[in-house]
Amino acid sequence: MARYALALDLGGTKLDAALVAEDGSVLAASRNRRPTGRAATPADLESAIAETAAHALARLPEDAEFVGVGIGSAGPVDVATGAIHPVNMPQLHGFGLADAARRAVAGVLGHDDFATRLRHDGGCLALAESWIGAAAGSRASLSIVVSTGVGGGIVVDGAPIGGASGNAGHLGQMVIGELTLEELASGPSSVRWAQGEGWSGETGEDIARDAAAGDRIARAAIERSAALVGLGLANASTLLDLDVIAISGGFSRVSDDYVDLVAAAVRRTAVLPYAQATRVVRSALGDEGPLVGAAALVLR
Amino acid sequence: MARYALALDLGGTKLDAALVAEDGSVLAASRNRRPTGRAATPADLESAIAETAAHALARLPEDAEFVGVGIGSAGPVDVATGAIHPVNMPQLHGFGLADAARRAVAGVLGHDDFATRLRHDGGCLALAESWIGAAAGSRASLSIVVSTGVGGGIVVDGAPIGGASGNAGHLGQMVIGELTLEELASGPSSVRWAQGEGWSGETGEDIARDAAAGDRIARAAIERSAALVGLGLANASTLLDLDVIAISGGFSRVSDDYVDLVAAAVRRTAVLPYAQATRVVRSALGDEGPLVGAAALVLR
Repeated sequence: MARYALALDLGGTKLDAALVAEDGSVLAASRNRRPTGRAATPADLESAIAETAAHALARLPEDAEFVGVGIGSAGPVDVATGAIHPVNMPQLHGFGLADAARRAVAGVLGHDDFATRLRHDGGCLALAESWIGAAAGSRASLSIVVSTGVGGGIVVDGAPIGGASGNAGHLGQMVIGELTLEELASGPSSVRWAQGEGWSGETGEDIARDAAAGDRIARAAIERSAALVGLGLANASTLLDLDVIAISGGFSRVSDDYVDLVAAAVRRTAVLPYAQATRVVRSALGDEGPLVGAAALVLR
Repeated sequence: MARYALALDLGGTKLDAALVAEDGSVLAASRNRRPTGRAATPADLESAIAETAAHALARLPEDAEFVGVGIGSAGPVDVATGAIHPVNMPQLHGFGLADAARRAVAGVLGHDDFATRLRHDGGCLALAESWIGAAAGSRASLSIVVSTGVGGGIVVDGAPIGGASGNAGHLGQMVIGELTLEELASGPSSVRWAQGEGWSGETGEDIARDAAAGDRIARAAIERSAALVGLGLANASTLLDLDVIAISGGFSRVSDDYVDLVAAAVRRTAVLPYAQATRVVRSALGDEGPLVGAAALVLR
């Protein structure tokens, strides 16, 4: 009997839902999305969960076994209570996301005989990359998103490292000088830096286009972001002894060589040989990682 | 039947050996030490291991069960091969420490029916603090030595986090600006900084004495070291979601409030609430930590 999980991925701009099979494949017809955003309220999110869960669960194949609901959320989270405290959605601080998802699924199924697990989205991403992605077979990996935000997660010997409250992996909030890595090296931060240097574009896509066309400031913004991300990752690998780092997120696609630039920065910055030797590779799952990893929380 | 392990702790200045009982107590009469140092050769170390192991094992109580030999070493190490690559003892790079210890113990006992395990000393320290020290009962802890060097180890849910090759915890080699945390904040680094500011002392003990007597530069050197260590630990806790950080090492005793200064720096520097909430405490094991933790590798 085929086993499926419902995966929910709550980010700063949208809630994604889908059924995921035990080989990690996403059932395309089950996939659906609702917008979120900075102004999202608990009532908004309850409706969005109920609607997306009902849509996805209606596609559960006959005779399939439903294992449970795995939830990835923008962090921080509190895995003990199932509540979230997302930095970029202030009205959702303290929202009981795990309970809300469990109620919504039980409402559709008419029973509550299923598992419910919550992690922050970076932890889910890392679990997915370690399961069927770029970090498969690794002993200790970190997966990172470089996008509007910078975040990630850690997997050691196949198990996600949550830490005391489930939040290990928030490397975007590591401090470099006076600012955080995210404030220095994310897509929007790179745009602001380039504008400060006299560049006239407005988005990460503009940086990509102008750098490809030879604009020096746009190219410098890419190299600067990669060097800063590489510094953060060199320190993470020194602390954690990582064999693989997988990079995803919209701004990581700003140039063909972004991942190579990060890899070079890790080798150049790290002091100890084991940290210099960490393989830095592009994500194998693209933006599907957090959703697949949320499912892995209950499928594996 | 009481169970004992032989613990070996190889540092940059000495090799310590002792029998450790399964409650973590060190059998005083079994304790012995040989000097090492930057010029130490493989032959020197083989002799030192043979002598210290024989001395300790001769004190094994009658009817006691000998479990095995646990080894902590200055890092980096390679836990897969049992070889060490200590930064400060260049002639020992590649030395097969686990094999050498195993041979020495088998030579004394006349059999090789015992366990052998190796970790870097920071990992052993963290295991000891988590077992019977300041991090007992924690979910995710980091233990750090601030001394001639700066190093540490990580324990999550009672298990040491080794990473890909067993070296997780080397936070002294995290890079801040152009230098490592160790190059900035260790005892000798703090002495050099104070001398550069015009202070005339020569050792960490001089800093302690002069700061206690009101010398402003000596006091500033202490506050500077604590702020830098706090920055490194804030980043470590952001990445790892630690509930407890335990601090030991000679330079951590440079003033009564050194640990409090580090704790304040962690709270001030960390951005995320879970990292600000990390408890920063003094080690409960003093300098015994690495030896007790080496024993824990085979006793637990």
